[in-house]
Amino acid sequence: MLKLYYSPGAASLAVHIALEEAGADYHAIAKTVREGAHLQPDYLAINPKGRVPSLETGHGVLTETPAILAYIAAIFPGAGLSPKGDPFAEARLLAFNNYLSSTVHVAHAHGPRAGRWADDPAAHAAMKAKVPETMAASFDLIERTMFEGPWVFGETYTTADPYLFTMTRWLDGDGVDRTTFPKIDAHYRAMAARPAVARVAAEEGLPPAI
Amino acid sequence: MLKLYYSPGAASLAVHIALEEAGADYHAIAKTVREGAHLQPDYLAINPKGRVPSLETGHGVLTETPAILAYIAAIFPGAGLSPKGDPFAEARLLAFNNYLSSTVHVAHAHGPRAGRWADDPAAHAAMKAKVPETMAASFDLIERTMFEGPWVFGETYTTADPYLFTMTRWLDGDGVDRTTFPKIDAHYRAMAARPAVARVAAEEGLPPAI
Repeated sequence: MLKLYYSPGAASLAVHIALEEAGADYHAIAKTVREGAHLQPDYLAINPKGRVPSLETGHGVLTETPAILAYIAAIFPGAGLSPKGDPFAEARLLAFNNYLSSTVHVAHAHGPRAGRWADDPAAHAAMKAKVPETMAASFDLIERTMFEGPWVFGETYTTADPYLFTMTRWLDGDGVDRTTFPKIDAHYRAMAARPAVARVAAEEGLPPAI
Repeated sequence: MLKLYYSPGAASLAVHIALEEAGADYHAIAKTVREGAHLQPDYLAINPKGRVPSLETGHGVLTETPAILAYIAAIFPGAGLSPKGDPFAEARLLAFNNYLSSTVHVAHAHGPRAGRWADDPAAHAAMKAKVPETMAASFDLIERTMFEGPWVFGETYTTADPYLFTMTRWLDGDGVDRTTFPKIDAHYRAMAARPAVARVAAEEGLPPAI
């Protein structure tokens, strides 16, 4: 059985929702970052990076959210979470998810995880101060140039949707008003209304998305 | 015909090499970051992110290095740059490339592009000071836990190889001694010996890899 290692509300939320949408038979195990569970030896033996998510499969452990999302879409083709047989459409989905991983997640992380990139507390404060600007710039670019609606890639719900939702959830804590981006705001509310999202939120102990 | 927009020695080098290895019919157009060409209106009309690489295809423009690499592997299946029909192996390759994009490239960028994440010049200096440590930690993790050898995924050359080579090229400028990582050092020299790599290096005007 698939085993998902997650921390409540972290990037792993995207994978958790995708598993639930796919109707996967899986077991979800909390490794709560706030408690340092992701840095304990038992978890480092599973994922030496000390990050969530990790997905334990019958073939080995997978890491990195966009890769795990692509794997779930591939092994549950009936869920239709990724286009098939159209290399350009598949690559466009990968590009969107990669942007969330390498630019949006990184922009957000400069608030709570500034210590990754500098040792000086004054530098941490300077990084944290810029998070509202970089997150707003990223979401502005998504709203204007990437998002089709009602889902990220139009009428078809893909892995991009739970991943975008996961990042949109962070905006309030990052000092960005979600309603500045009307299309993404509507997407957030449509995601919150999905039964799979409600089930995962309950399992992770997250406050209801409003 | 495919059009690659690149900046000499940037992450786009990985895509440039992959196109050359695949025997693709393509045209490479320099948008040199040092000269600000990536922020001019003509290029922003192609890629509103203002980043390289971009790949113009008959279906539209693709961005994000891991996504473009996956696309090249998919449309040139004969080049064997990605495993096919094995979702776990495909996802493992995606995970490796995503790690380079979201962790290694980001660690490096805190030197030359610290201004993305803070406005204070003192913070930029603090970020730059930590680059040798974060780059060395990333390459240590790759050497110990990811790299199989002689190529990243063993006997088969994949898109991970030109991408890793591109990041390894940056180590010297980042203050990290490549030879600390014997497997990655051997990989770098094996890459430099490939005719496709030499052709691309000449086209981008890069010094020979030694």
